[in-house]
Amino acid sequence: MKKRIVVQKYGGSSVKDAERIKAVAQRIVSYKNKNTDIAVVVSAMADTTDDLETLAFQISKNPADREMDLLLSTGEQISCALLAMAVRELGFASVALTGYQVGVMTDNTHLKARVHHVDNKRINKAFKAGEIVIMAGYQGITEEGEITTLGRGGSDLSAVALAKAIKADVCEIYTDVTGIYTTDPRLVPEARKLEEITFDEMLEMASLGAQVMQARSIEVAKRFNIPLHVRSSYSREEGTMIVKTTKKIEDVAVTGVTSNKNEAKITICAVPDEPGVSARIFKAIAEAGVNVDVIVQNVSHTRKTDISFTVPKTDLAKAIQVAEETSAKIKAGQILHSKEIARVSIVGSGMRSHQGIAARMFDALAKASINIEMISTSEISISCIIALDKVDSAVKILHKAFQLEK
Amino acid sequence: MKKRIVVQKYGGSSVKDAERIKAVAQRIVSYKNKNTDIAVVVSAMADTTDDLETLAFQISKNPADREMDLLLSTGEQISCALLAMAVRELGFASVALTGYQVGVMTDNTHLKARVHHVDNKRINKAFKAGEIVIMAGYQGITEEGEITTLGRGGSDLSAVALAKAIKADVCEIYTDVTGIYTTDPRLVPEARKLEEITFDEMLEMASLGAQVMQARSIEVAKRFNIPLHVRSSYSREEGTMIVKTTKKIEDVAVTGVTSNKNEAKITICAVPDEPGVSARIFKAIAEAGVNVDVIVQNVSHTRKTDISFTVPKTDLAKAIQVAEETSAKIKAGQILHSKEIARVSIVGSGMRSHQGIAARMFDALAKASINIEMISTSEISISCIIALDKVDSAVKILHKAFQLEK
Repeated sequence: MKKRIVVQKYGGSSVKDAERIKAVAQRIVSYKNKNTDIAVVVSAMADTTDDLETLAFQISKNPADREMDLLLSTGEQISCALLAMAVRELGFASVALTGYQVGVMTDNTHLKARVHHVDNKRINKAFKAGEIVIMAGYQGITEEGEITTLGRGGSDLSAVALAKAIKADVCEIYTDVTGIYTTDPRLVPEARKLEEITFDEMLEMASLGAQVMQARSIEVAKRFNIPLHVRSSYSREEGTMIVKTTKKIEDVAVTGVTSNKNEAKITICAVPDEPGVSARIFKAIAEAGVNVDVIVQNVSHTRKTDISFTVPKTDLAKAIQVAEETSAKIKAGQILHSKEIARVSIVGSGMRSHQGIAARMFDALAKASINIEMISTSEISISCIIALDKVDSAVKILHKAFQLEK
Repeated sequence: MKKRIVVQKYGGSSVKDAERIKAVAQRIVSYKNKNTDIAVVVSAMADTTDDLETLAFQISKNPADREMDLLLSTGEQISCALLAMAVRELGFASVALTGYQVGVMTDNTHLKARVHHVDNKRINKAFKAGEIVIMAGYQGITEEGEITTLGRGGSDLSAVALAKAIKADVCEIYTDVTGIYTTDPRLVPEARKLEEITFDEMLEMASLGAQVMQARSIEVAKRFNIPLHVRSSYSREEGTMIVKTTKKIEDVAVTGVTSNKNEAKITICAVPDEPGVSARIFKAIAEAGVNVDVIVQNVSHTRKTDISFTVPKTDLAKAIQVAEETSAKIKAGQILHSKEIARVSIVGSGMRSHQGIAARMFDALAKASINIEMISTSEISISCIIALDKVDSAVKILHKAFQLEK
């Protein structure tokens, strides 16, 4: 009989101190049996990475990326060594491996390296010896032997890439929530835990503000069809499976509601309605390193139009400056901006086949006298920019309007 | 012209925080010029190694050596990354390298690995690129890619092994003292800093209690004749050169006085004076993992003799137990012990050719009414076991008797 292979990933809060590390070890060994091999990917103990960054910035305002990677990768090396000790203490064979000991091969883009492939030889050797593998997440190595890191949230990516390499049956992502909910349960007590969600829905949820998993790692899981199981490291409750297609005969129209309060709006007034003008504006913003999210350009009746867009609040000052410079060059008008906006979104694979979803959303918001300032849609999501002070109630209203509690 | 190659080693107290790391970086670059290549070996920031050990022991009473090495080696990886950042911040090219990136090849004895060889290719490549190399001390890697550490004080060994590999002109050991003194200057204000000392003298000094450098690293430096320069990281003062033979035409008889208060004495009374009895006693003690230092067996006039020996105070209880068990088996008498003893030693290469040194030592102690309980000699040292409460004054008396202040 083929053995079941499970990858488990534990985040920094799950291993924040010696007690939590021991608790995680207990959980790991409870899943180990003669028909199951387990490879664990672990993040740095909570705060370790931040503390190391603080030290680096005390020494240099602009530390070299290469040395930053050498520094930051120690966080996961520490936690994987400690977790392997804790597993052995429970009487199970275990081996801690760094990214380079496993062979997590990456390109040489320090601080946000891309994984080329993960070697499975060292892991399979450990499995053969009956060992539970504890691998340091977030780190890799280049062909030249340089240590790299995969960017914040990179341990998720380590876990998915490892799951692919060793043909895992499932990749379990342990976190401090019990799964993916129809919306934030702190905001809407009726929020329901989803049994299943598709990769596409999860990608929309992740990029729209649900911060359970890193988006890149979901993309990779989708590409190689690796089932993900998002669950809590504090309970034994089943979490949410993220899969290619759900088992349901028909997709529900709407799976979840998300909100994002970290955006601000900029409007460039009286932009000359000529070809190439939008391109100039957004090229300038992109060159300043600012990610633009929703863009709305009104239909022009005169020769002038208004262009509105949202940017992260942290980049607002920079974006205003670039907008003003560009406005002067293209002979547009004044720049308006507001931090008092937020985004509310509905997500669901079923939107592809269900009509009237947008209308129902707009109608529900209108009935609550919530004004929609901007609208943006994708194949499986609809987002509205509304007033910041209305967004929490908008989430509640939409959750109810689409009967997500049922 | 052949470039001068300098290895510098900085201990944990020299890099204990961001400010000290910046100060060390200033010092390093002040020695760099177009005719000098510098490779620095750095220990973990003060307390880091202890903190990591504490964490490990919170998780397991008996953590696996392999994982302990993975854990402890992060301390030096952190400090080397930070120090390279600090050097770059001063406008000098620099590269931080871990033990395995350099190729510090060791055997697989985790926690106290022996260095087989150090590869010079990566370092020479960095030198060619004009870079100041910052290497993580204390760590190596096995042929199989396992991370090892070299034992406490192992960064000294890393520095000496590196100096050999890259044919350094000198290996500078930076510490918090300004060099090697004729005796402990905190105890004897007249103590004089030595300009030079031989490897052999330094080995005696080190094993007799002067804790400036790890003994193993001095042995390696001696074997490959690598000049060591022990100096302070807090001043630019010249320190002490440790060399094969000093430049002096004739060796001085006595170079230094050391003391050791960490020993205790055990006496096994009425031991049958038969062949093989001593061997049985010390075999049993060795098997208990206790290092015996001075051994004295009195000449026997009857068929019974007393055997006295010293052991580290921390091992006294264990040693007494073994002595009692063995005494019963060999039909010897009672076991006496005392913690109220200490050792005072004089060291000097010149003893080989000077007569009467021992007599002068015993005479000086006798004049001060200090009773000698045990005596032990080597080719270049004489040690006396005396009462603990007399040892500080004995050091002063001997320092004066041999005119070491001059």
